[in-house]
Amino acid sequence: MAALRVLIPVYWFCLIPICIWAAKEAKLRFGKNGEFKILQVADMHYGNGKTTHCLDVLPSQYPSCSDLNTTAFIQRIILSEKPNLIVFTGDNIFGYDTSDPAKSMDAAFAPAIASNIPWVAVLGNHDQEGSLSREGVMKYIAGMKNTLSKVNPPEVNIIDGFGNYNLEVEGVEGTHFENKSVLNLYFLDSGDYSKVPFIPGYGWIKPSQQLWFQRTSQKLRKAYMTGLVPQQEPAPGLAYFHIPLPEYASFDSSNFTGVKEEGISSASVNSGFFATLVEAGDVKVVFTGHDHVNDFCGKLTGIHLCYAGGFGYHAYGKAGWSRRARMVVVSLEKTENGRWEDVKSIKTWKRLDDQNLTGIDGQVLWSKGFGSNRRKKQDGGS
Amino acid sequence: MAALRVLIPVYWFCLIPICIWAAKEAKLRFGKNGEFKILQVADMHYGNGKTTHCLDVLPSQYPSCSDLNTTAFIQRIILSEKPNLIVFTGDNIFGYDTSDPAKSMDAAFAPAIASNIPWVAVLGNHDQEGSLSREGVMKYIAGMKNTLSKVNPPEVNIIDGFGNYNLEVEGVEGTHFENKSVLNLYFLDSGDYSKVPFIPGYGWIKPSQQLWFQRTSQKLRKAYMTGLVPQQEPAPGLAYFHIPLPEYASFDSSNFTGVKEEGISSASVNSGFFATLVEAGDVKVVFTGHDHVNDFCGKLTGIHLCYAGGFGYHAYGKAGWSRRARMVVVSLEKTENGRWEDVKSIKTWKRLDDQNLTGIDGQVLWSKGFGSNRRKKQDGGS
Repeated sequence: MAALRVLIPVYWFCLIPICIWAAKEAKLRFGKNGEFKILQVADMHYGNGKTTHCLDVLPSQYPSCSDLNTTAFIQRIILSEKPNLIVFTGDNIFGYDTSDPAKSMDAAFAPAIASNIPWVAVLGNHDQEGSLSREGVMKYIAGMKNTLSKVNPPEVNIIDGFGNYNLEVEGVEGTHFENKSVLNLYFLDSGDYSKVPFIPGYGWIKPSQQLWFQRTSQKLRKAYMTGLVPQQEPAPGLAYFHIPLPEYASFDSSNFTGVKEEGISSASVNSGFFATLVEAGDVKVVFTGHDHVNDFCGKLTGIHLCYAGGFGYHAYGKAGWSRRARMVVVSLEKTENGRWEDVKSIKTWKRLDDQNLTGIDGQVLWSKGFGSNRRKKQDGGS
Repeated sequence: MAALRVLIPVYWFCLIPICIWAAKEAKLRFGKNGEFKILQVADMHYGNGKTTHCLDVLPSQYPSCSDLNTTAFIQRIILSEKPNLIVFTGDNIFGYDTSDPAKSMDAAFAPAIASNIPWVAVLGNHDQEGSLSREGVMKYIAGMKNTLSKVNPPEVNIIDGFGNYNLEVEGVEGTHFENKSVLNLYFLDSGDYSKVPFIPGYGWIKPSQQLWFQRTSQKLRKAYMTGLVPQQEPAPGLAYFHIPLPEYASFDSSNFTGVKEEGISSASVNSGFFATLVEAGDVKVVFTGHDHVNDFCGKLTGIHLCYAGGFGYHAYGKAGWSRRARMVVVSLEKTENGRWEDVKSIKTWKRLDDQNLTGIDGQVLWSKGFGSNRRKKQDGGS
């Protein structure tokens, strides 16, 4: 009966021209195997395709290497991993080197579109460096085939940036969780460069975006912890954006998994989004790109901060160090009678662009009941 | 004619019972001497009055020392300095040691009320530790005589904390600036303690408060830079709250004026308000309390961060180190033909509670045209 209530309006919408809009509003859902798998592609830096050469590859690779290697990598990894969602975390195109940003995006996202797998993208700091503004780029992306990307949340009048939105992933069809978002995905625009004379460097996530995130998180928490099968804790969340938070600098090789081959290029000010995430309590992992030769995950105050490592061949990297992508699989709890319930664990690994798409650095990022942000009353100090 | 437009509604309101409300909405104004002087009183820690003993005073002072010494100090300094506004920056009462918070507040603010000088207050982390909640304390304050304090901005539906508001200080009557706010004062609730299990320690300024500040600052900037006598830059602003920002830890004796006799007890997370202040560009000085034996001012990224030093006798301090208050005088520019214009400078000093109310550490915090946050187009890096 609950399933029917969802289906009717979708079919009804499809009888009129806004069917496409209605289809785009369709929620994501866990598969019958109780898993939801996400492929993160960071920093494709796509240019003009075949004529755009690779950076930082071995001399033997250089003559035949172009954006098409980026395309081939994404095609192979989609085929191999069969993700439920593909997330592009910015610098999808390298604006300076594109003669037509729209064409570059068409080519960059083509393998995702061809796969018929839902995909989303956020902006990096280079996407708008061609002839399209940040707003123009994000609007173009939001209009592409098979994407669930949005320019900005419709319920908010004014918000900084372009590409702030969230997606809900519902439980397995036919279970008690089929109409509940058991996994929440947040996508934010971390900006490009500081617009403030006294602050050099990269952009940051602004108060308006943080307030939207806070309220969205609260709304989702409330829905999850009430209604049918009310839960004790909020559904776990994952946040995707481009520029790492200043807190990414909290780690060294003693407390992260992966490598750190360059500095942390976050904004030169701390705009407080990490504090906002910790306070909200639902987001378990933040995924960024931006620093191509950092690919680690480290845990701070209950939240994992993860890089994906650079994916694209027209992006700086390290010759002989494979381009890579980050995979995440979120797995549901199974009851004794075999029914899928809420999220049990969040795991990650990376795939290298070598002959075998070698998987490395597998790790569990979160497990239900271990180090959860369970709310409790605090007395406070002095 | 412009002056008339302001006066008419005030007189009209005074014919009906909401006269008090209308009077409270009256804007502050620079005096005929072109100055606006503010007394900051930090951490009175008022208890029950005469029966509440002093902390950290010399053995010779102890027997006769009580909250009444705090009262005597505020009476003397008001008489001596004749400020245009008195700002109490939290921990006005020490909740744990008050048998009746309302009575404690009546006594603590009595000298300000008796002076007939407008006064305002924000909350610290100890004000709500008696039988009144933070909301209850702030509502009580906002209802007291001669105060311009507000519980929260009426134009915002939901905002964190209690005691977020702003005041405009208009130019000298009869000048081109008589209907323009040439100085903007912001008051915020910096919270008490973290409510997040994973984050220990003190509270912080939340995204909702920062967004309110940002929008208020933008609105004031627009009003100041348009209309009659449109200005090239926003009017300078001063921000008052209780808990120092994490950026207060950026200084040492080589780059501040005053003393640092204890650590910086800010929140253990950086919620980004300093970045928000720098981005807004109008606030030139932040004034806090909280750390009683720190009384320095240091400048970072164009903004001075100032402590007041502890004022109250039922607050920890240092025996033999005088209780103190921070003064600020904002001075207007005078044209060659003797008319007052916009703000020329912001100066500060401290007054010690000794026989002569000794003034120390006088310094210019801001001068028009020197290190201003003038907006300019920035190309951005990579």
